[in-house]
Formats: sequence, C-alpha cells, structure tokens
Amino acid sequence: MIQFQDRAGLQAALATLPQPDRLATEAAALRQASLTKPAGSLGRLEEIALFMAGWQGRDRPRADRIRAAIFSGNHGVAARGVSAFPPSVTAQMVANFQAGGAAINALATACGADLVIVPLALDNPTADICEAPAMTEAECLDALNAGAAAVPEDCDLLFTGEMGIANTTPAAALCLYAFGGDAQDWTGRGTGIDEAGLARKTQAVQAALGLHGLHCNDAFETLRRLGGREIAAMAGAILAARIMRVPVLLDGFICGAAVAPLVRDNPAITGHCLAAHCSAEAGHARLLEKLGLDPLLHLNMRLGEGSGAAVAEQLIRSALAAHAQMATFAQAAVAGAL
Amino acid sequence: MIQFQDRAGLQAALATLPQPDRLATEAAALRQASLTKPAGSLGRLEEIALFMAGWQGRDRPRADRIRAAIFSGNHGVAARGVSAFPPSVTAQMVANFQAGGAAINALATACGADLVIVPLALDNPTADICEAPAMTEAECLDALNAGAAAVPEDCDLLFTGEMGIANTTPAAALCLYAFGGDAQDWTGRGTGIDEAGLARKTQAVQAALGLHGLHCNDAFETLRRLGGREIAAMAGAILAARIMRVPVLLDGFICGAAVAPLVRDNPAITGHCLAAHCSAEAGHARLLEKLGLDPLLHLNMRLGEGSGAAVAEQLIRSALAAHAQMATFAQAAVAGAL
Repeated sequence: MIQFQDRAGLQAALATLPQPDRLATEAAALRQASLTKPAGSLGRLEEIALFMAGWQGRDRPRADRIRAAIFSGNHGVAARGVSAFPPSVTAQMVANFQAGGAAINALATACGADLVIVPLALDNPTADICEAPAMTEAECLDALNAGAAAVPEDCDLLFTGEMGIANTTPAAALCLYAFGGDAQDWTGRGTGIDEAGLARKTQAVQAALGLHGLHCNDAFETLRRLGGREIAAMAGAILAARIMRVPVLLDGFICGAAVAPLVRDNPAITGHCLAAHCSAEAGHARLLEKLGLDPLLHLNMRLGEGSGAAVAEQLIRSALAAHAQMATFAQAAVAGAL
Repeated sequence: MIQFQDRAGLQAALATLPQPDRLATEAAALRQASLTKPAGSLGRLEEIALFMAGWQGRDRPRADRIRAAIFSGNHGVAARGVSAFPPSVTAQMVANFQAGGAAINALATACGADLVIVPLALDNPTADICEAPAMTEAECLDALNAGAAAVPEDCDLLFTGEMGIANTTPAAALCLYAFGGDAQDWTGRGTGIDEAGLARKTQAVQAALGLHGLHCNDAFETLRRLGGREIAAMAGAILAARIMRVPVLLDGFICGAAVAPLVRDNPAITGHCLAAHCSAEAGHARLLEKLGLDPLLHLNMRLGEGSGAAVAEQLIRSALAAHAQMATFAQAAVAGAL
C-alpha cells in the first residue's frame, strides 16, 4: 500500500512518475494486428487495449479486479449557499451508498466493480475556502493517504468518485488556479443551482483565488488551500495508482479538478488516466481539454459518485474481451486484405 | 413470429406502425423523478430508461433477453473490386463467428447478448447491382423473413449486425436513393480500400442508381434492387421488432442503410430505434442525421458484425440497472433540492 510521509514525500513522488511498459504495449499491438478484423476497425477499443497493456505490463491485459473508490467530504463553503442541496445530504447519500440504494451501487454492480465507500470526517467540514485554507497540513495528508489506501495491490483498473455537497465550488477554484481564465469559465450549476446561487458560487470561487492564489506553491499546498477531503483523496488515489502502475478511469468534473494541481507540477500525471466521459457540468469540457484527455462518453451525465466512470468501464471491459478472446487470421483460416 | 406474406404485406405493415406505451413512459418518468439523484443528472441514461419503458410497456424495463442477430450475404458487385477483401472472406468469417473467434463473439458475451448467426445463401451471391436487381422478389422476401424470424417472442432488445464482403457498396446506393446527394457523400473506404478502389466503388454506386433509381417505387423494391440479403434481413428484423414493440439498437452504416428505404416510406420507423454509435465509415454521420438519431457512442469503430451495438448495449443495461435498482428519496431518507 502506498502512503505519503509528508508534503515533501508527495511532491517527490509526483516528480518521478513511472512510465508504461513499452514492450507490453508493442506485444499487444502485434496481437491486435493479427486478429480477424480489418486493421484499426475496432477504433478506440484497440487504443484502450494497448493503453491497458502498457500500464498492466501484460500483452493481454485483464479487467478482473476493478476498484471503484468513492470518497466523501463536507465543505465549509456550503454555508455560502453555493449548492442546490443542504450539506446534510452528504451523510444521507453516504448512508444510501452503504445501503446499496444509489446510482453508483447499481452501476458498479452492472460493470462488475468492487465498490468501496470512504467517508472522510463528514462531521468536520473543511474551512470555508473564502476565509481560510480548507485543511491543515495534517488533514490534507490524511485525506491524500486515505485515497492512496483505497488502491489495492493487484488492481487491474481504478476509478474514483465523490460525494460532497458544494464540492463543485472548490473544484472550480482548483481549475481556475491550475489553468487560469475567469471564475465563470469553471463555475457551473453543480446539482442544479439557480441563477442567484450561481452568482454566489462564482463570487466564492473568485474570492478563494484572491485569498490563496499567491500561496499555492505546489500540488499539496493547492489541494490543502482550495480543495476538500474527498478531492485530496482522489488526488492521492490517482497518484498512488500511478506509482503502482494501475490505470485509472477519471469520472467527472470534480475528479478531473483533483488532478489539476498535480498536472501543474507534472503534466505527465495524466499518462495513466483515461477520461470516462464529458459531463454536463459547465467547465468539464474545458478541463478535459486542459488535461489533454479525450473522453470516452458524452452522455450529458452530471451526477458524480463515479457514475460516468462505471458506465465507461464497460467499454474497457469490451475492449479487453475482444483483444484477449478473438481468433487470429491464422487460427481462423481467414484471408487477409488484398 | 412475424412473417411477411408478400411485398404488399410488408408495405402494409410499414404503413401502420405501432406506437410506444405512453402510460409506461409516464410511469417511468415519475419513478426517475423520485430516485436519489439531482433531477436529470443521469442525462442520456434517463432518456434511455424512458425509451425502453415505452417500447416494453413496463415502468421498469428489463435487459434480460437481448438478441444479437448477425446476418450475412454475398454480393455480385464484389467482382468490380469494391472491397479490400475477397468475397471468400464472407464464409470464412461466418465460420469464425460459428467457432466463437470473431469480435462479435467476445463483445456479445461481454454484453450478455444471445447471439444468432444467420448466413443467407452465401454460395449464391446477389446479382451485380450495376447490371440487374440484386434479388428476385422471392429472394428478397426470403431475406426479409429470415430477418423477421430472428426476433424472438419476449425479447427485451434487439440488435442486428452484418458480414458481407462489398456490402458498403449497396449500403451507399440505398442511402443515395433514400436521401439524395452525390455518390461520393455516401461512399467510404469500408474495410480499408485504396484510392483506386474507392473510385471504382463510387462509380458502381452511381451506376446502380442510374440503372434502378426510377424503378424503386417502395421500400421492398428498393431493397430488392439495390440491397443484398443481409441488408434486407436487417430491414425485416427491424420492422418485425417494431410490430412486436421490441426496441432496437442500430449498429453501423450498413445497418442504418437497411433502414433508409423504410424511412422513405414511413419516417416513423426509427421511433423504436436507438443508434449505437457513429462509425468511421464516411457516410455514417450523415446517415444518422438523416435518420434523426443521435448516436450513443463515438469510438471510431468500423467493423460491422453488430460490434458497435454490442458495446452500446451495456449503456442500456446500465441505464436500466440504475432505473430499476436505485432507492427513492423517501426510501433512503435523503433530503431533496432546496
């Protein structure tokens, strides 16, 4: 299990990222070329098979052990009226996850993922990012390590998700810090806030940047000041997965925003990531572009919880099934192209 | 089992299409609104659940019995050098389907579909559409009925696929007839033909239209003159599914082209259809636009065999799992929006 000792340890890990196994990728490409189909005709599915081969270090990558890790936290900034739902819903939805009644329960079962629910100090919201850093150093490190701890050994694919009323506000602030632009570019309606709420939210994002922007010296400090526990946990899980060479399927806007501060320190961090989908949240398409990721799905989803990743996971499963199970031209005695 | 008695019987069926069950759609919409998520946050998955509810006539539609019907035929026009592969590959690939070694075998297993392979007179190619009608009336009716016979009773969802070397040529001709434009608009590289082959193919499409265009009086006659056995079979299956109120997931360009002549006679025929994906075949995006269908996936696939539909089927499965299994706000004691 990966754990980060301190801020310096996390930054050192982020500075020295492992790369995929090129030999496994090449072996998988040779296999793809031998399968009974016109070259390239499975399109993106073929790219996925090679991507998974490289990170798993196997010419026939597997999708047997899929970890879905859903983190949750509460946010002091919720008191500013930046969400359509009250903060009490965070714990209520976690109870719903634990009882098996949420969308992610149905979708994780449908995609065959092993679901773990990780609530993070729900009774102790982060500080209001418009007034103070969201977390202390110890709180931020704990959250990062809770994320890292959720990545098991021998994992074929990780996807992360989140639940935290008001968390599109810190997510927007992280994107604004990492990629610039205006607060409006990154601030959307989240779970469905009205016009006045959107104005309050945009103002909060702007205020948070004004307070913390000059102090965000590295990924850790950016997550600590502008993030939240579930956001830091996703960042920790995604970095830990990279160290373990576990490929990652990113869910929606908040999940991508968790990666944003890491990208600022080392753009190579997205190398082991696929983007599951482009959500309906306003800033997500822009965020994916900044991350250099082409999303697998465009289904106008905006739920969070890892729901988009759970749907996209099935595309990966399909890609690997075709890659592993198809006969070659020689095996099937099928003639090649003229 | 649906069977068409003759050309007039098919045309009469096409003229009087059943509609979805509006009460089931409304009941499903009420259920969606009660589930523990922000309204609309599952995006397209919510639309799919309502679509399936209407056609199945159930407020909680099922994805238990999925039929994947893969039709195959040979084409006289192949002799004009319009494909990158020789016609012998059609039968070789059918043998590969039957032995379990093709992409559709892996993908149908991955998505839980019941796969049936229906080869149609592979030793007796259709006539060259540049010289004569592809089929006699009896041959065309047989193919349509072979398609209709592949739709079982009590089927939750049908998807069709095809294998037939050179079949993007008749498919392009059907699109050109149904929707106009130039032969180039509809003629693509299929399994990967070169520039000279593409020129021959475009010329063949144009020649076929010149010969038959004025005689294509209805859907049946259009399929008979410009189609092929596997194409007519897909049209028959899709029409039979409509009569049985079985929803259909359309695969790629050739599958959509099979619907094109039906659309010309009755545009409502696509009402029970979802488009699985937009393929890399040149004319497919335009065809989907003409059919009024917004594809679920954009994965740059171009294999046929029902492969894109098998991947997209999992999105339907996810949509129905969330719809059926999620707790309501009341059940989970979760507060609604403010």
